[in-house]
Amino acid sequence: MTQMPEDVRTALERLMIDYCYAVDGLQDVQPLLDIFTDDAKADLTAIGLPMMNDKSDIKAFFDGVFEQMSHHFHFISNFRPENWDGEVGAMSAYVIGMGRAHDGNRVEVQVKYRMECVETQTGWRCRHYTITPMMPLPGSLDQIHGDH
Amino acid sequence: MTQMPEDVRTALERLMIDYCYAVDGLQDVQPLLDIFTDDAKADLTAIGLPMMNDKSDIKAFFDGVFEQMSHHFHFISNFRPENWDGEVGAMSAYVIGMGRAHDGNRVEVQVKYRMECVETQTGWRCRHYTITPMMPLPGSLDQIHGDH
Amino acid sequence: MTQMPEDVRTALERLMIDYCYAVDGLQDVQPLLDIFTDDAKADLTAIGLPMMNDKSDIKAFFDGVFEQMSHHFHFISNFRPENWDGEVGAMSAYVIGMGRAHDGNRVEVQVKYRMECVETQTGWRCRHYTITPMMPLPGSLDQIHGDH
Repeated sequence: MTQMPEDVRTALERLMIDYCYAVDGLQDVQPLLDIFTDDAKADLTAIGLPMMNDKSDIKAFFDGVFEQMSHHFHFISNFRPENWDGEVGAMSAYVIGMGRAHDGNRVEVQVKYRMECVETQTGWRCRHYTITPMMPLPGSLDQIHGDH
Repeated sequence: MTQMPEDVRTALERLMIDYCYAVDGLQDVQPLLDIFTDDAKADLTAIGLPMMNDKSDIKAFFDGVFEQMSHHFHFISNFRPENWDGEVGAMSAYVIGMGRAHDGNRVEVQVKYRMECVETQTGWRCRHYTITPMMPLPGSLDQIHGDH
Repeated sequence: MTQMPEDVRTALERLMIDYCYAVDGLQDVQPLLDIFTDDAKADLTAIGLPMMNDKSDIKAFFDGVFEQMSHHFHFISNFRPENWDGEVGAMSAYVIGMGRAHDGNRVEVQVKYRMECVETQTGWRCRHYTITPMMPLPGSLDQIHGDH
């Protein structure tokens, strides 16, 4: 691929960190929605969770998650550019994700995130988000997020 | 907030990494004390540990920790600037902290660090350090560090 | 030490991240071998694994690992320059390494990597790689990788 410019690389890394803080906030879903373009898709099918085809799907999913969870911890590292065509940039990263539901159920996953991003008038935004598992998934993931 | 300059951001990230290496060294408490200003405060009350009001409090706490622990592992990531006023910079980060005491007791926590820092003649130093829990704390944390 | 230049620092961090992606690929050992110089040594003795004295030793070890493992996850952070003499750069980092073998056995370690690197015609490469344990090692590490 053409090498991703350093400023794009930095912007995407920071967007992915902002996503982690947003998903761990668990109070207000808006900062999380602000990570995405209006037509963003989120494909979580590889970890047994929904395919979300637009921002209202993403909102519905995370509204449910935020209602159900008492604790979240999404630890991100291993950032690596995957693609750059001059306008669209894709960045991968590894994530250790932990959560505890209000009912006491707990989950921990080791996954890879991929965010395909574009620059908008309000900064870089994700238009396609994919999670793939790296270690075998625990059964509790489906119990916790699978209904949404 | 005013955006934190890149060089400050980099300095604070590296200071927080140096803190992890220092707290994991477990031999000599001095490199850890060097992270802090002389009037630094460390508020660990949110995880059930002491409020330290100056550097001698910090030294006393970590003297105890270093004596008690055989192993430490403080893994840091998710760096994010929280505040910058032109002189004082605050940076957050996530940490997975693990420890094993000489008596065999073990602990693992998932927390957020916040370090409020100022530039001194010997480089950037932390003047206010806070730890907040992200996942529920294990009972072994109090057993291991709670006496100090 | 002389301060490591920023571009070298960045190159070594990215090389160590590439190593993690390569070791987690588990299909083709070549991207992993490409991280190293032809005369590279890898000293894994501190975690009970082999001393590898050249690239063929490294290939033999990882050929075995790749055959045995169904999943790998090597999460890296806490990058810190250790040495720079104007030509050779050494970088440390912390790693949480997880694996699952085809026989279902699992392992998790918390370790420190050190890579001593030189610039070659094809970019920065590691000529000496060391792993040291930070938390006590699980017995399953020897069961999983110890035969190689």
